[in-house]
Amino acid sequence: MSSQNALLSLFISLAVLETLAAARLPGLRSTAELNNSLTYLWPVPTSFSHGVGVLSIDPDLDLNDEGDGGESSIVQEAFQRYKEIIFNHRCVKRDRYDVTRLTISVESDDETLQLGVDESYMLFIASDEVRSVIQGITIEAKTVYGALRGLETFSQLCNFNHRTKTVEVHKAPWVILDKPRFAFRGLLIDTSRHYLPINTIKQVIESMSYAKLNVLHWHIIDEESFPLEIPSYPDLWSGSYTKGERYTIEDASEIVDFAKKRGINIMPEIDVPGHAESWGAGYPDLWPSPTCREPLDVTKSFTFEVISGILSDMRNIFPFELFHLGGDEVHTDCWNSTSHVKQWLLDHNMTAEEAYQYFVLRAQKIAIQKGRTPVNWEETFNTFKTCLNPRTVVHNWLGSGVCPKAVAQGFRCIVSNQGVWYLDHLDIPWQDFYNNEPLEGIKDVSQQPLVLGGEVCMWGETTDASNVQQTIWPRAAAAAERLWSAREDTSTGNINETVLPRLEYFRCLLHQRGVPAAPLTNFYARRPPIGPGSCYLQ
Amino acid sequence: MSSQNALLSLFISLAVLETLAAARLPGLRSTAELNNSLTYLWPVPTSFSHGVGVLSIDPDLDLNDEGDGGESSIVQEAFQRYKEIIFNHRCVKRDRYDVTRLTISVESDDETLQLGVDESYMLFIASDEVRSVIQGITIEAKTVYGALRGLETFSQLCNFNHRTKTVEVHKAPWVILDKPRFAFRGLLIDTSRHYLPINTIKQVIESMSYAKLNVLHWHIIDEESFPLEIPSYPDLWSGSYTKGERYTIEDASEIVDFAKKRGINIMPEIDVPGHAESWGAGYPDLWPSPTCREPLDVTKSFTFEVISGILSDMRNIFPFELFHLGGDEVHTDCWNSTSHVKQWLLDHNMTAEEAYQYFVLRAQKIAIQKGRTPVNWEETFNTFKTCLNPRTVVHNWLGSGVCPKAVAQGFRCIVSNQGVWYLDHLDIPWQDFYNNEPLEGIKDVSQQPLVLGGEVCMWGETTDASNVQQTIWPRAAAAAERLWSAREDTSTGNINETVLPRLEYFRCLLHQRGVPAAPLTNFYARRPPIGPGSCYLQ
Repeated sequence: MSSQNALLSLFISLAVLETLAAARLPGLRSTAELNNSLTYLWPVPTSFSHGVGVLSIDPDLDLNDEGDGGESSIVQEAFQRYKEIIFNHRCVKRDRYDVTRLTISVESDDETLQLGVDESYMLFIASDEVRSVIQGITIEAKTVYGALRGLETFSQLCNFNHRTKTVEVHKAPWVILDKPRFAFRGLLIDTSRHYLPINTIKQVIESMSYAKLNVLHWHIIDEESFPLEIPSYPDLWSGSYTKGERYTIEDASEIVDFAKKRGINIMPEIDVPGHAESWGAGYPDLWPSPTCREPLDVTKSFTFEVISGILSDMRNIFPFELFHLGGDEVHTDCWNSTSHVKQWLLDHNMTAEEAYQYFVLRAQKIAIQKGRTPVNWEETFNTFKTCLNPRTVVHNWLGSGVCPKAVAQGFRCIVSNQGVWYLDHLDIPWQDFYNNEPLEGIKDVSQQPLVLGGEVCMWGETTDASNVQQTIWPRAAAAAERLWSAREDTSTGNINETVLPRLEYFRCLLHQRGVPAAPLTNFYARRPPIGPGSCYLQ
Repeated sequence: MSSQNALLSLFISLAVLETLAAARLPGLRSTAELNNSLTYLWPVPTSFSHGVGVLSIDPDLDLNDEGDGGESSIVQEAFQRYKEIIFNHRCVKRDRYDVTRLTISVESDDETLQLGVDESYMLFIASDEVRSVIQGITIEAKTVYGALRGLETFSQLCNFNHRTKTVEVHKAPWVILDKPRFAFRGLLIDTSRHYLPINTIKQVIESMSYAKLNVLHWHIIDEESFPLEIPSYPDLWSGSYTKGERYTIEDASEIVDFAKKRGINIMPEIDVPGHAESWGAGYPDLWPSPTCREPLDVTKSFTFEVISGILSDMRNIFPFELFHLGGDEVHTDCWNSTSHVKQWLLDHNMTAEEAYQYFVLRAQKIAIQKGRTPVNWEETFNTFKTCLNPRTVVHNWLGSGVCPKAVAQGFRCIVSNQGVWYLDHLDIPWQDFYNNEPLEGIKDVSQQPLVLGGEVCMWGETTDASNVQQTIWPRAAAAAERLWSAREDTSTGNINETVLPRLEYFRCLLHQRGVPAAPLTNFYARRPPIGPGSCYLQ
């Protein structure tokens, strides 16, 4: 940050910044018309400065790519996507525009997308004509993914003027220096309780990129259905609801590619040994018995061969180093009441709880052998913390408080406190999503970097392709700003004055982009508007 | 129909139809897996015959266009759209396919899209290799719009096989001869109670084409907001909620063009003299007084100048001959209590009800002078039927029974009985949508053609961009089959056996195409699924 701030100081001293206003979230009431003293960017950038001018943007905006990464198809395709978003309304052609060209300069041509990839960018917006260092529109980034974030910010600054029928940037010139606060900004979807078609998943991914979220945690399989093809064990997806409610490995690759082009990693999950009843539809041997279908049979080497096969197959599809192994809600009662399991426990001198630990650690070992970093739900840490592989990422969900304990033990952690970050809890208001501070309770600054970030969870019991987007949005956006923006910008002031109008604006921006974000002001999420009115006030 | 049936008989006698099964909606229980004795086409075609073969379709399917209309960009672009829909899953490349080419033969290059345009088509599907008249896939149509309907039907016959990773047509060969029962198959959207962004309207239009609906009744303006630009009276859209919640004339043209490419007409509505309070935001003179803002001021020539200006401007945007002038729910009380209006009524020796008639007829005259056919809500007919211009199309909504009276008087009629075809009535089940027979009560066959068809209405009080699609779908599809398919196919048998599984299938098809159609089996529409399960059973 320091070097960026120095750069910012330099720019601020330049004559190009006409009347500069440091518009950092001043408080104002919510009205349907925009409030000039708020900055309608979501999530709010790390630092920004602007003037008071208005620039017209040429609908035939040209891309000028620079740097080793500028020619990347990821950049080129994103530019075309954002052009369609920005010029959503037909413009009336003018003789001249203030800006006719967008320069994207990307330092590196390395397109590897892993945890902690550099997503920082600088965005400069001024007239083409001005004689200054800042001339025209420039996005500078170290990686293509930083360039994507800059394009998103630029697109949010573009407004269609219905009178002049021109796209304009207001409050120009702009200098924005931005980077994410947390490396892991996730959203979980659940395709076991309801199958979500490829197009629906793509819609979710596309909308995540608007809020600068960067990890889709794909809870693919659970007890209800097993929709994914596993070539090594081709009968596993017999556990799908129907033959059509399935993903081939090519479908999964398509989703991974689509997400990568938006700077989003897919973190797959196979939740073991609980939540796995559907595995036995194709391979009944994985069940301890026909009446004890879960947790998976801990006694058989076949169980771990299948897990190993799944990991091998999925490694070819999902390049993300983090791999979620579940481990939550493991109820071992029926292990104790199944004779061959009971005998095995006796033979191995284990309690059922120890067998649960044995299972989780053996699955972790398989994942690590295949180059994956295991992520496990917090019960694994709560039950046998010191035994977990030290590379384990602990995934909080039961409530607040586990991440401080996990990072104190040296583990990395992801926050998903169900009381505030579970999207299927329809009674959690956006304010609670917004105010959930991932570093709460972690005073030791050396431990803070172990919190990778957080994730909002869209469990699928009552959510299918008909309503997943309006259950996710706009509340997920509240968490997205918490995870991207500076702590001081998201933790002070009256959020009903400084944040609500901006979030309402972002909801309406999602609408314009075809994303059906639900009203904000209802008590329960995803409920219809209660009566006629402007998008900006509901 | 007769010549088509003769042709069908000919084909049926050909050796190419292996084991032919005339699968006309046999009754079977609803299960998550497809029932082989049902034909999963929505709406069900007028007549069809098929075999028992399976044909693989080349993902690089070529288009062979024939006839004067084959080269139309409407056909060419539709072919590309449907290719994307059909090959939604990545296919594994094979050495050979049964079908590599689709022939579309369109007789006419006339792209005029008006009420009654020929939408009939014939669809033949067989292997490329077979020696027969039916060879490969052929769509024959008189107009480009018939070709679009044929492409939709073809796309619904294509299934992705998750095992072979190939798109297949089952029960081949196919001979389908199809045409709509009614010329007007509409859906109303309301952009006054809530603004719907361009992208949302496009999503609605795209999904309408999947159900072969062909008129979007755009209730643009109402008392709450006036979102449309009217160049002749540029302050009218001051009545919009915000500066952003507006449509320019270019936006409207974009929507008209988008719809035309899908064979869908846009029927605009300006609802006068009631439901027009928002007009006065820009021109307060249109209000009888600041406390009497509706109905519009009947006494001023300015009122009719504005209506004339709107009609002139809108004629340039909306080529459809039908123009909706509203006329419903006109409460004239405040005319009687506004002194200058009261005086005008005295001077003209009119009651308020007569002034309502005067207003409607004067507006009709303006529309007719500008080459438009007026459509009016049924109150106009109920109140002063014999005075209406004989070209008037009466639009039913208050309940059943008005269309029989209207056609008996020689008027044309559109059915939208609110008790069964109002989508905002969430307690109307799909069965009621399905069973609403537009010709009910009209025994005289010479009067039956005066029923143009029907329309389901998506009023916007509690519907915005966040939930409009799942309030429309799947119930609108039930009405769509009623309006397209033969009466005998939609009026017999146990619809929970013959129709429900097909409608569930269509709902899931909408999901695959990215349309968030709500569950069918809930009591109230647009409610979430009540628990985990297959799309096909909820």
